[in-house]
Amino acid sequence: MIKNYQEFTKLNLKLDMSRGKPSPEQLDLSLPLLNEISVSEQIKNSGVDCRNYGVQLGLPEVREFFAPLLEVPESQVVVDGSSSLALMHDVIVYALLYGIQGNSPWRGDKKISFLCPVPGYDRHFSILEAFGIEMINVPLLEDGPDMDIVESLIRDNDSIKGMWCVPKYSNPTGAVYSEEVINRLAAMKVAAADFRLFWDDAYRFHHLTEQRVSIPNIIEACQQAGNPDRAIVFASTSKMTFAGSGLALLASSVANIAWWQKCVSVRTIGPDKLNQSRHLHFFKHVVSVEDLMDQHRLILKPKFDIVDSIFEEYLGKIDNISWSKPLGGYFIDLITPPGLAKRTIELAKNAGIILTPAGATFPYGLDPEDKHIRIAPSFPSLDEIKLAAQGVSLALLQAISE
Amino acid sequence: MIKNYQEFTKLNLKLDMSRGKPSPEQLDLSLPLLNEISVSEQIKNSGVDCRNYGVQLGLPEVREFFAPLLEVPESQVVVDGSSSLALMHDVIVYALLYGIQGNSPWRGDKKISFLCPVPGYDRHFSILEAFGIEMINVPLLEDGPDMDIVESLIRDNDSIKGMWCVPKYSNPTGAVYSEEVINRLAAMKVAAADFRLFWDDAYRFHHLTEQRVSIPNIIEACQQAGNPDRAIVFASTSKMTFAGSGLALLASSVANIAWWQKCVSVRTIGPDKLNQSRHLHFFKHVVSVEDLMDQHRLILKPKFDIVDSIFEEYLGKIDNISWSKPLGGYFIDLITPPGLAKRTIELAKNAGIILTPAGATFPYGLDPEDKHIRIAPSFPSLDEIKLAAQGVSLALLQAISE
Repeated sequence: MIKNYQEFTKLNLKLDMSRGKPSPEQLDLSLPLLNEISVSEQIKNSGVDCRNYGVQLGLPEVREFFAPLLEVPESQVVVDGSSSLALMHDVIVYALLYGIQGNSPWRGDKKISFLCPVPGYDRHFSILEAFGIEMINVPLLEDGPDMDIVESLIRDNDSIKGMWCVPKYSNPTGAVYSEEVINRLAAMKVAAADFRLFWDDAYRFHHLTEQRVSIPNIIEACQQAGNPDRAIVFASTSKMTFAGSGLALLASSVANIAWWQKCVSVRTIGPDKLNQSRHLHFFKHVVSVEDLMDQHRLILKPKFDIVDSIFEEYLGKIDNISWSKPLGGYFIDLITPPGLAKRTIELAKNAGIILTPAGATFPYGLDPEDKHIRIAPSFPSLDEIKLAAQGVSLALLQAISE
Repeated sequence: MIKNYQEFTKLNLKLDMSRGKPSPEQLDLSLPLLNEISVSEQIKNSGVDCRNYGVQLGLPEVREFFAPLLEVPESQVVVDGSSSLALMHDVIVYALLYGIQGNSPWRGDKKISFLCPVPGYDRHFSILEAFGIEMINVPLLEDGPDMDIVESLIRDNDSIKGMWCVPKYSNPTGAVYSEEVINRLAAMKVAAADFRLFWDDAYRFHHLTEQRVSIPNIIEACQQAGNPDRAIVFASTSKMTFAGSGLALLASSVANIAWWQKCVSVRTIGPDKLNQSRHLHFFKHVVSVEDLMDQHRLILKPKFDIVDSIFEEYLGKIDNISWSKPLGGYFIDLITPPGLAKRTIELAKNAGIILTPAGATFPYGLDPEDKHIRIAPSFPSLDEIKLAAQGVSLALLQAISE
């Protein structure tokens, strides 16, 4: 074990732990997706020639496949291109320019804002910042956003049009929304009729334990609470098959899907159906999704474990330091004593370890207590992760000693 | 030969000539694209793992491949998803919400408008109509838009922010912009600093004769005229490889590309690079693009010829009827005596032939003289096309006789 920061810097490492990218070994799991595409995969039983134009909301067979996985009827699933982030972005664009289902376009003279549980996903915040949508921080607790605060903010403020939610294995803390939180989100009194929950179910199938955490269906919960159009669910196979060449999914109420279809049909004639057909052939049965995710888990779990045990060894006895122990997802949230995250990330960089920039998990890049460091252990090898975790620990200890 | 409309209706046909879709035989030309993807196609020499996230503007190797085809440096080519329509849509969205390069967002209190050469492409007009952008008709002549009108409209009216151009084998007339028109478009005095030519080069490689019409490079022409950022060029391989699973291309000035990158990086982490790599492997050399398009031509040309000869036979001697004889592209524009297009399309429908709706080639679906019928001969078989051309001719004769 390396004992101090100066010694560590002499290793001249070059490690990138900044983004939640799958490792090459994980990508290898889906290599059969790259096999030759047979005639039956080109022209479907539904009569659709996947090589030609059309089919706005995705191949019928593929929508049917994902419906039980997302727990909605087939008619309420959209299978689109390869990026779920693009779907979230475009929902906001359409809301800004068209308005949602007869409501005024969000873009006008009036200020609009979103509730942002923090820490959260930097790319969610980037979209809002780019469009000048105000972001209101809400503390993310272990069982989801602080609902007392959410309910009090949203009850009377009709400028609040949306809320980001990563309900399971949240980025970066790994928090899982409880049944109570989900039901309160579904039922809460909301001032704006066109308020939407942006339910980014990015890690729905991405378990790190055999527990396979399951949470209530938000679309159903909203329906039961009398708010059927409140939630728009996003998911993708980016971290199941190929990041960048997977399938992006959107699920919502019948009315929201109809609105989406109207908007998206102005934009394009249809998604890449060959890639959809390819995925269907690869997965074949719903159960194979679980099998595949088990294989991902076997690659990812040791990386998370080694980070945890190194942190325990180096930092376990230091006051005011903690880190999340997620049951799924792609990140660990390392919490430093206040005011030390930025300096720790800088010291790690000087030792050759690139981490997500300080503050990135907060709107406008501002972590008010400068204490969150997002650790992304998925991409580097186990040996590299081990070194990197030591380096981050030593950088933090160095920051404390300064 | 069937001699009258009533006789024709008894055939109980079901033919769809409404959209410019490639035929199954054309799609078969690109079947090698569906072969297994080798390791060298997965991980490129540039070090990019095509299976993972990243590379915003497209694979370097694929940008390099398309640069000479679009006659711009590699750094000025973007290779994106599968839909060039989506790129055009998104440029307009970004201009509406962000503004172009420091100019005010188009969306504000002020009215904005586009010049629309007519007849034109219905999906271009749909985007503008959806966003409430006013469309101003400009006659499309045989050598491009009527430039006297364009120049007089655009000189002092700073609400005019854009102009649709399909410069070669225009949809639906097949018009090819002349060198003079292109140079005037590049050099004309324009009131709005953020005016852009939306240069939809959809049929750049889609020749119907061995002549392979070539037109001046609009990006170069604009640069030489001192308006380097005026043109944004769009193209795609949708009608070269697979419609819906091809590659969409955007080319423009360095400044426009930088602006695009800034906007698109908020939307997504990167395009489907496996499909890009697949295309590179399929094409290999620039010359194979020409070879492929020759094969398309051999399938398409007889279909256009049969329509032309049937129209000649049935309609050649009737006053006030004409049709375009395109040297490329996907459409024939049949011009009826004024006031008869709608009725002809209705009669054709009653005889089992679906044509593009009357007026579709004009903004707001309004063909002021009700005389344009867009004929799309690409998808049906040669025998079907022959029948359909007879049916359309008989429907038109019937409409005249009424």
